[in-house]
Amino acid sequence: MTALDDRPLVLDADARAALFTDAHTVQRFAPTPVTDAQLTELWDLARWAPTAANLQPLRLLFVRSAQGRERLLPLLAEQNRDRAATAPVTAVLARDDRFHDAIPHVAPYLSGLQPVLEENDGMRAEMGGYSAALQAGYLILAVRALGLAAGPMAGFDKAGVDAEFFAGTPWKSELVVNIGYPAAQDAFRPRMPRLAPKDVVRFA
Amino acid sequence: MTALDDRPLVLDADARAALFTDAHTVQRFAPTPVTDAQLTELWDLARWAPTAANLQPLRLLFVRSAQGRERLLPLLAEQNRDRAATAPVTAVLARDDRFHDAIPHVAPYLSGLQPVLEENDGMRAEMGGYSAALQAGYLILAVRALGLAAGPMAGFDKAGVDAEFFAGTPWKSELVVNIGYPAAQDAFRPRMPRLAPKDVVRFA
Repeated sequence: MTALDDRPLVLDADARAALFTDAHTVQRFAPTPVTDAQLTELWDLARWAPTAANLQPLRLLFVRSAQGRERLLPLLAEQNRDRAATAPVTAVLARDDRFHDAIPHVAPYLSGLQPVLEENDGMRAEMGGYSAALQAGYLILAVRALGLAAGPMAGFDKAGVDAEFFAGTPWKSELVVNIGYPAAQDAFRPRMPRLAPKDVVRFA
Repeated sequence: MTALDDRPLVLDADARAALFTDAHTVQRFAPTPVTDAQLTELWDLARWAPTAANLQPLRLLFVRSAQGRERLLPLLAEQNRDRAATAPVTAVLARDDRFHDAIPHVAPYLSGLQPVLEENDGMRAEMGGYSAALQAGYLILAVRALGLAAGPMAGFDKAGVDAEFFAGTPWKSELVVNIGYPAAQDAFRPRMPRLAPKDVVRFA
Protein backbone atom coordinates (compact mmCIF):
# COMPACT_ATOMS: atom_id res chain seq x y z
CA MET A 1 0.00 0.00 0.00
CA THR A 2 1.35 3.42 -0.85
CA ALA A 3 0.36 7.00 -0.12
CA LEU A 4 -0.98 7.21 -3.66
CA ASP A 5 -3.70 4.63 -2.96
CA ASP A 6 -7.11 5.92 -2.08
CA ARG A 7 -6.86 4.14 1.27
CA PRO A 8 -4.01 6.09 2.83
CA LEU A 9 -1.67 4.47 5.31
CA VAL A 10 -1.95 5.89 8.82
CA LEU A 11 1.15 5.32 10.95
CA ASP A 12 0.53 3.11 13.97
CA ALA A 13 1.32 4.07 17.56
CA ASP A 14 4.77 2.44 17.50
CA ALA A 15 5.84 4.33 14.39
CA ARG A 16 4.48 7.61 15.78
CA ALA A 17 6.34 6.98 19.01
CA ALA A 18 9.59 6.32 17.15
CA LEU A 19 9.28 9.49 15.05
CA PHE A 20 7.57 11.96 17.36
CA THR A 21 6.05 11.20 20.72
CA ASP A 22 8.73 9.05 22.38
CA ALA A 23 11.84 10.13 20.50
CA HIS A 24 14.34 12.14 22.52
CA THR A 25 17.45 14.07 21.63
CA VAL A 26 20.38 11.84 22.59
CA GLN A 27 23.12 13.11 24.87
CA ARG A 28 25.28 9.96 24.94
CA PHE A 29 25.62 7.38 22.20
CA ALA A 30 26.44 3.65 22.22
CA PRO A 31 29.61 2.55 20.38
CA THR A 32 27.46 0.66 17.81
CA PRO A 33 28.56 1.92 14.39
CA VAL A 34 26.32 3.53 11.78
CA THR A 35 26.94 1.77 8.47
CA ASP A 36 27.52 3.23 5.01
CA ALA A 37 24.29 1.53 3.94
CA GLN A 38 22.36 3.35 6.67
CA LEU A 39 23.76 6.74 5.64
CA THR A 40 22.86 6.03 2.02
CA GLU A 41 19.36 4.98 3.08
CA LEU A 42 19.02 8.09 5.21
CA TRP A 43 19.47 10.46 2.32
CA ASP A 44 17.41 8.21 0.03
CA LEU A 45 14.49 8.87 2.37
CA ALA A 46 14.97 12.51 3.28
CA ARG A 47 15.61 13.80 -0.22
CA TRP A 48 12.05 13.10 -1.42
CA ALA A 49 10.29 15.50 0.93
CA PRO A 50 9.29 18.84 -0.62
CA THR A 51 11.25 22.09 -0.93
CA ALA A 52 10.21 25.44 -2.35
CA ALA A 53 10.21 25.13 -6.14
CA ASN A 54 12.04 21.79 -5.71
CA LEU A 55 15.34 23.64 -5.24
CA GLN A 56 16.79 21.29 -2.56
CA PRO A 57 19.43 23.58 -1.05
CA LEU A 58 20.48 21.23 1.79
CA ARG A 59 23.95 19.69 1.71
CA LEU A 60 25.40 17.08 4.07
CA LEU A 61 28.84 16.38 5.44
CA PHE A 62 29.04 13.16 7.44
CA VAL A 63 31.97 13.42 9.86
CA ARG A 64 33.01 9.99 11.10
CA SER A 65 36.77 9.51 10.70
CA ALA A 66 39.02 10.11 13.68
CA GLN A 67 40.67 12.93 11.77
CA GLY A 68 37.34 14.52 10.79
CA ARG A 69 36.17 14.38 14.37
CA GLU A 70 39.37 16.02 15.60
CA ARG A 71 38.79 18.91 13.22
CA LEU A 72 35.12 19.31 14.18
CA LEU A 73 35.03 18.94 17.96
CA PRO A 74 36.94 22.13 18.86
CA LEU A 75 34.49 24.13 16.71
CA LEU A 76 31.46 22.99 18.73
CA ALA A 77 30.19 24.91 21.73
CA GLU A 78 31.87 23.46 24.81
CA GLN A 79 28.70 21.86 26.19
CA ASN A 80 28.19 20.03 22.87
CA ARG A 81 31.64 18.42 22.58
CA ASP A 82 31.06 15.44 24.85
CA ARG A 83 27.86 14.57 23.04
CA ALA A 84 29.47 14.68 19.61
CA ALA A 85 32.52 12.78 20.88
CA THR A 86 30.35 9.72 21.63
CA ALA A 87 28.42 9.81 18.32
CA PRO A 88 29.57 7.40 15.59
CA VAL A 89 28.58 10.00 12.98
CA THR A 90 28.09 13.73 13.27
CA ALA A 91 26.40 15.32 10.26
CA VAL A 92 27.07 18.95 9.39
CA LEU A 93 23.98 20.30 7.63
CA ALA A 94 24.69 23.17 5.26
CA ARG A 95 22.86 25.23 2.68
CA ASP A 96 24.44 25.56 -0.73
CA ASP A 97 24.57 29.28 -1.50
CA ARG A 98 24.66 28.33 -5.20
CA PHE A 99 21.62 26.06 -5.11
CA HIS A 100 20.24 28.04 -8.05
CA ASP A 101 22.88 26.45 -10.32
CA ALA A 102 20.68 23.32 -10.26
CA ILE A 103 17.57 25.08 -11.63
CA PRO A 104 18.00 23.75 -15.21
CA HIS A 105 17.97 20.22 -13.80
CA VAL A 106 15.51 20.36 -10.87
CA ALA A 107 13.11 23.14 -11.90
CA PRO A 108 13.62 23.92 -15.60
CA TYR A 109 10.31 25.81 -15.80
CA LEU A 110 11.87 28.40 -13.44
CA SER A 111 14.77 29.40 -15.69
CA GLY A 112 13.82 33.05 -15.20
CA LEU A 113 14.54 32.76 -11.48
CA GLN A 114 18.16 31.76 -11.97
CA PRO A 115 19.57 35.21 -12.92
CA VAL A 116 17.41 36.88 -10.25
CA LEU A 117 18.93 34.67 -7.56
CA GLU A 118 22.42 35.11 -9.00
CA GLU A 119 22.20 38.85 -8.43
CA ASN A 120 20.42 38.84 -5.10
CA ASP A 121 22.44 37.55 -2.16
CA GLY A 122 19.70 38.28 0.36
CA MET A 123 17.00 36.48 -1.61
CA ARG A 124 19.32 33.50 -2.04
CA ALA A 125 20.10 33.33 1.68
CA GLU A 126 16.43 33.64 2.62
CA MET A 127 15.04 31.18 0.09
CA GLY A 128 17.88 28.69 0.47
CA GLY A 129 17.93 29.03 4.24
CA TYR A 130 14.23 28.33 4.59
CA SER A 131 14.14 25.20 2.46
CA ALA A 132 17.42 23.89 3.88
CA ALA A 133 15.88 24.17 7.35
CA LEU A 134 12.74 22.33 6.16
CA GLN A 135 15.06 19.63 4.85
CA ALA A 136 16.92 19.54 8.17
CA GLY A 137 13.57 18.76 9.81
CA TYR A 138 12.96 15.96 7.30
CA LEU A 139 16.45 14.59 7.88
CA ILE A 140 16.04 14.45 11.66
CA LEU A 141 12.83 12.45 11.25
CA ALA A 142 14.45 10.23 8.59
CA VAL A 143 17.21 9.40 11.08
CA ARG A 144 14.50 8.27 13.48
CA ALA A 145 12.65 6.37 10.73
CA LEU A 146 15.75 4.19 10.38
CA GLY A 147 15.73 3.31 14.07
CA LEU A 148 18.63 5.64 14.77
CA ALA A 149 18.67 8.51 17.25
CA ALA A 150 19.40 12.11 16.32
CA GLY A 151 21.00 14.76 18.46
CA PRO A 152 20.70 18.16 16.74
CA MET A 153 22.96 20.96 18.03
CA ALA A 154 22.78 24.59 16.98
CA GLY A 155 25.67 25.73 19.18
CA PHE A 156 28.84 25.76 17.10
CA ASP A 157 31.20 28.14 15.33
CA LYS A 158 29.63 28.38 11.88
CA ALA A 159 32.35 30.52 10.35
CA GLY A 160 34.96 28.18 11.81
CA VAL A 161 33.25 25.08 10.42
CA ASP A 162 32.88 26.74 7.01
CA ALA A 163 36.57 27.66 6.97
CA GLU A 164 37.69 24.21 8.15
CA PHE A 165 35.45 22.03 5.96
CA PHE A 166 33.88 24.17 3.23
CA ALA A 167 36.65 26.60 2.18
CA GLY A 168 36.39 27.38 -1.53
CA THR A 169 32.84 26.01 -1.72
CA PRO A 170 29.46 27.76 -1.46
CA TRP A 171 28.35 25.52 1.44
CA LYS A 172 27.27 27.40 4.60
CA SER A 173 26.87 25.35 7.79
CA GLU A 174 23.54 25.70 9.61
CA LEU A 175 23.12 22.79 12.05
CA VAL A 176 25.06 19.84 13.44
CA VAL A 177 23.27 16.53 14.07
CA ASN A 178 24.76 13.61 15.97
CA ILE A 179 23.57 10.23 14.66
CA GLY A 180 23.80 6.82 16.31
CA TYR A 181 22.21 4.54 18.90
CA PRO A 182 21.48 5.71 22.45
CA ALA A 183 23.95 4.65 25.13
CA ALA A 184 22.72 2.03 27.60
CA GLN A 185 22.95 4.61 30.39
CA ASP A 186 22.52 8.37 30.61
CA ALA A 187 21.48 8.60 26.97
CA PHE A 188 18.68 11.09 27.60
CA ARG A 189 17.93 14.07 29.78
CA PRO A 190 14.37 14.62 31.05
CA ARG A 191 12.23 16.08 28.31
CA MET A 192 11.57 19.81 28.51
CA PRO A 193 7.94 20.97 28.34
CA ARG A 194 6.17 21.72 25.07
CA LEU A 195 3.87 24.69 24.59
CA ALA A 196 0.16 24.07 25.08
CA PRO A 197 -1.87 23.87 21.86
CA LYS A 198 -3.91 26.90 22.99
CA ASP A 199 -0.73 29.02 22.74
CA VAL A 200 0.13 27.73 19.28
CA VAL A 201 -2.99 26.84 17.29
CA ARG A 202 -5.76 29.12 16.03
CA PHE A 203 -8.64 28.67 13.59
CA ALA A 204 -10.22 30.89 10.96
CA MET B 1 8.02 -0.98 21.60
CA THR B 2 9.25 2.59 21.83
CA ALA B 3 12.27 4.43 20.56
CA LEU B 4 13.66 4.32 24.09
CA ASP B 5 13.97 0.54 24.01
CA ASP B 6 17.35 -0.89 23.12
CA ARG B 7 15.76 -2.60 20.10
CA PRO B 8 14.82 0.45 18.04
CA LEU B 9 11.82 0.39 15.75
CA VAL B 10 12.75 0.70 12.07
CA LEU B 11 9.90 1.96 9.88
CA ASP B 12 8.74 -0.59 7.31
CA ALA B 13 8.56 0.07 3.57
CA ASP B 14 4.89 1.12 3.67
CA ALA B 15 5.49 3.72 6.36
CA ARG B 16 8.59 5.03 4.56
CA ALA B 17 6.59 5.27 1.36
CA ALA B 18 3.80 7.19 3.12
CA LEU B 19 6.22 9.67 4.68
CA PHE B 20 8.98 10.01 2.11
CA THR B 21 9.43 7.93 -0.98
CA ASP B 22 5.90 7.80 -2.44
CA ALA B 23 4.37 10.94 -0.93
CA HIS B 24 3.66 13.74 -3.41
CA THR B 25 2.61 17.33 -3.03
CA VAL B 26 -1.11 17.42 -3.79
CA GLN B 27 -2.49 19.79 -6.41
CA ARG B 28 -6.18 18.84 -6.10
CA PHE B 29 -7.96 17.58 -3.01
CA ALA B 30 -11.00 15.34 -2.48
CA PRO B 31 -13.99 16.89 -0.68
CA THR B 32 -13.46 14.49 2.28
CA PRO B 33 -13.27 16.70 5.38
CA VAL B 34 -10.36 16.85 7.83
CA THR B 35 -11.77 16.50 11.35
CA ASP B 36 -11.05 18.51 14.48
CA ALA B 37 -9.67 15.33 16.01
CA GLN B 38 -7.17 14.98 13.14
CA LEU B 39 -5.97 18.57 13.51
CA THR B 40 -5.54 18.04 17.26
CA GLU B 41 -3.64 14.80 16.60
CA LEU B 42 -1.47 16.55 14.01
CA TRP B 43 -0.11 19.08 16.46
CA ASP B 44 0.14 16.43 19.20
CA LEU B 45 2.64 14.65 16.95
CA ALA B 46 4.58 17.52 15.45
CA ARG B 47 5.15 19.45 18.65
CA TRP B 48 7.46 16.81 20.17
CA ALA B 49 10.22 17.07 17.57
CA PRO B 50 13.24 19.13 18.61
CA THR B 51 13.88 22.88 18.28
CA ALA B 52 16.94 24.93 19.19
CA ALA B 53 16.96 25.32 22.98
CA ASN B 54 13.37 23.94 22.99
CA LEU B 55 12.05 27.38 22.04
CA GLN B 56 9.26 26.15 19.68
CA PRO B 57 8.66 29.33 17.66
CA LEU B 58 6.17 27.81 15.17
CA ARG B 59 2.53 28.93 15.30
CA LEU B 60 -0.39 27.55 13.29
CA LEU B 61 -3.53 29.07 11.86
CA PHE B 62 -5.90 26.48 10.39
CA VAL B 63 -8.08 28.17 7.78
CA ARG B 64 -11.19 26.11 7.04
CA SER B 65 -14.33 28.26 7.30
CA ALA B 66 -15.84 29.71 4.13
CA GLN B 67 -15.12 33.16 5.47
CA GLY B 68 -11.52 32.35 6.39
CA ARG B 69 -10.93 30.89 2.95
CA GLU B 70 -12.37 34.01 1.27
CA ARG B 71 -9.90 36.14 3.19
CA LEU B 72 -6.92 33.91 2.41
CA LEU B 73 -7.32 32.96 -1.25
CA PRO B 74 -6.73 36.42 -2.77
CA LEU B 75 -3.45 36.67 -0.83
CA LEU B 76 -2.01 33.54 -2.44
CA ALA B 77 0.01 33.64 -5.65
CA GLU B 78 -2.39 33.16 -8.55
CA GLN B 79 -1.10 29.71 -9.48
CA ASN B 80 -1.71 28.55 -5.88
CA ARG B 81 -5.35 29.64 -5.52
CA ASP B 82 -7.01 26.67 -7.24
CA ARG B 83 -5.02 24.24 -5.15
CA ALA B 84 -5.97 25.92 -1.87
CA ALA B 85 -9.59 26.28 -3.00
CA THR B 86 -9.99 22.49 -3.11
CA ALA B 87 -8.26 21.83 0.25
CA PRO B 88 -10.53 21.23 3.25
CA VAL B 89 -7.93 22.93 5.47
CA THR B 90 -5.16 25.34 4.61
CA ALA B 91 -2.66 25.91 7.42
CA VAL B 92 -0.75 29.17 7.67
CA LEU B 93 2.56 28.46 9.38
CA ALA B 94 4.03 31.43 11.21
CA ARG B 95 6.91 32.18 13.53
CA ASP B 96 6.13 34.01 16.73
CA ASP B 97 8.49 36.98 16.89
CA ARG B 98 8.03 36.92 20.68
CA PHE B 99 8.86 33.25 21.13
CA HIS B 100 11.36 34.30 23.80
CA ASP B 101 8.46 35.19 26.13
CA ALA B 102 8.08 31.43 26.72
CA ILE B 103 11.66 30.93 27.97
CA PRO B 104 10.70 30.81 31.68
CA HIS B 105 8.35 27.92 30.84
CA VAL B 106 10.12 25.96 28.09
CA ALA B 107 13.80 26.64 28.81
CA PRO B 108 14.14 28.14 32.31
CA TYR B 109 17.89 27.44 32.38
CA LEU B 110 18.25 29.98 29.55
CA SER B 111 16.85 32.97 31.45
CA GLY B 112 19.91 34.99 30.44
CA LEU B 113 18.95 34.65 26.78
CA GLN B 114 15.58 36.33 27.21
CA PRO B 115 16.80 39.96 27.49
CA VAL B 116 19.38 39.38 24.73
CA LEU B 117 16.63 38.29 22.32
CA GLU B 118 14.34 41.10 23.48
CA GLU B 119 16.91 43.64 22.33
CA ASN B 120 18.08 41.95 19.15
CA ASP B 121 15.51 41.83 16.34
CA GLY B 122 17.92 40.18 13.91
CA MET B 123 18.92 37.40 16.30
CA ARG B 124 15.24 36.77 17.06
CA ALA B 125 14.32 36.56 13.38
CA GLU B 126 17.25 34.25 12.62
CA MET B 127 16.84 31.92 15.59
CA GLY B 128 13.04 31.87 15.43
CA GLY B 129 13.01 31.54 11.66
CA TYR B 130 15.35 28.57 11.65
CA SER B 131 13.52 26.52 14.27
CA ALA B 132 10.09 27.46 12.88
CA ALA B 133 11.23 26.10 9.51
CA LEU B 134 12.49 22.89 11.15
CA GLN B 135 9.05 22.60 12.75
CA ALA B 136 7.39 23.21 9.38
CA GLY B 137 9.31 20.18 8.09
CA TYR B 138 8.11 18.12 11.06
CA LEU B 139 4.54 19.28 10.49
CA ILE B 140 4.53 18.30 6.82
CA LEU B 141 5.68 14.79 7.74
CA ALA B 142 3.18 14.62 10.63
CA VAL B 143 0.39 15.40 8.13
CA ARG B 144 1.56 12.41 6.11
CA ALA B 145 1.90 10.24 9.23
CA LEU B 146 -1.85 10.69 9.76
CA GLY B 147 -2.63 9.43 6.25
CA LEU B 148 -3.34 12.94 5.02
CA ALA B 149 -1.66 14.69 2.10
CA ALA B 150 0.20 18.00 2.40
CA GLY B 151 0.57 20.68 -0.24
CA PRO B 152 3.11 23.27 0.93
CA MET B 153 3.15 26.62 -0.92
CA ALA B 154 5.71 29.36 -0.46
CA GLY B 155 4.12 31.74 -2.98
CA PHE B 156 1.86 34.15 -1.14
CA ASP B 157 1.74 37.74 0.08
CA LYS B 158 3.29 37.45 3.53
CA ALA B 159 2.71 41.06 4.53
CA GLY B 160 -0.87 40.77 3.32
CA VAL B 161 -1.51 37.59 5.30
CA ASP B 162 0.05 39.12 8.41
CA ALA B 163 -2.16 42.21 8.08
CA GLU B 164 -5.31 40.19 7.40
CA PHE B 165 -4.90 37.48 10.04
CA PHE B 166 -2.17 38.47 12.49
CA ALA B 167 -2.61 42.23 12.97
CA GLY B 168 -1.70 43.27 16.51
CA THR B 169 0.12 39.96 17.14
CA PRO B 170 3.80 39.01 16.80
CA TRP B 171 3.01 36.17 14.35
CA LYS B 172 4.86 36.36 11.01
CA SER B 173 3.64 34.06 8.22
CA GLU B 174 6.28 31.87 6.57
CA LEU B 175 4.57 29.04 4.66
CA VAL B 176 1.09 27.88 3.65
CA VAL B 177 0.26 24.15 3.67
CA ASN B 178 -2.89 22.65 2.17
CA ILE B 179 -4.10 19.58 4.08
CA GLY B 180 -6.60 16.93 2.98
CA TYR B 181 -7.02 13.79 0.91
CA PRO B 182 -5.91 13.61 -2.74
CA ALA B 183 -8.65 14.01 -5.36
CA ALA B 184 -9.56 10.86 -7.29
CA GLN B 185 -8.23 12.47 -10.48
CA ASP B 186 -5.47 14.96 -11.26
CA ALA B 187 -4.30 15.03 -7.65
CA PHE B 188 -0.62 14.95 -8.52
CA ARG B 189 1.78 16.33 -11.09
CA PRO B 190 4.75 14.23 -12.21
CA ARG B 191 7.48 14.36 -9.63
CA MET B 192 10.39 16.67 -10.38
CA PRO B 193 13.90 15.19 -10.17
CA ARG B 194 15.93 15.11 -6.99
CA LEU B 195 19.63 15.92 -6.85
CA ALA B 196 22.01 12.97 -7.00
CA PRO B 197 23.61 12.01 -3.69
CA LYS B 198 27.06 12.76 -5.15
CA ASP B 199 26.03 16.42 -5.43
CA VAL B 200 24.74 16.59 -1.88
CA VAL B 201 26.66 14.22 0.40
CA ARG B 202 30.33 14.31 1.45
CA PHE B 203 32.35 12.49 4.09
CA ALA B 204 35.15 13.54 6.42
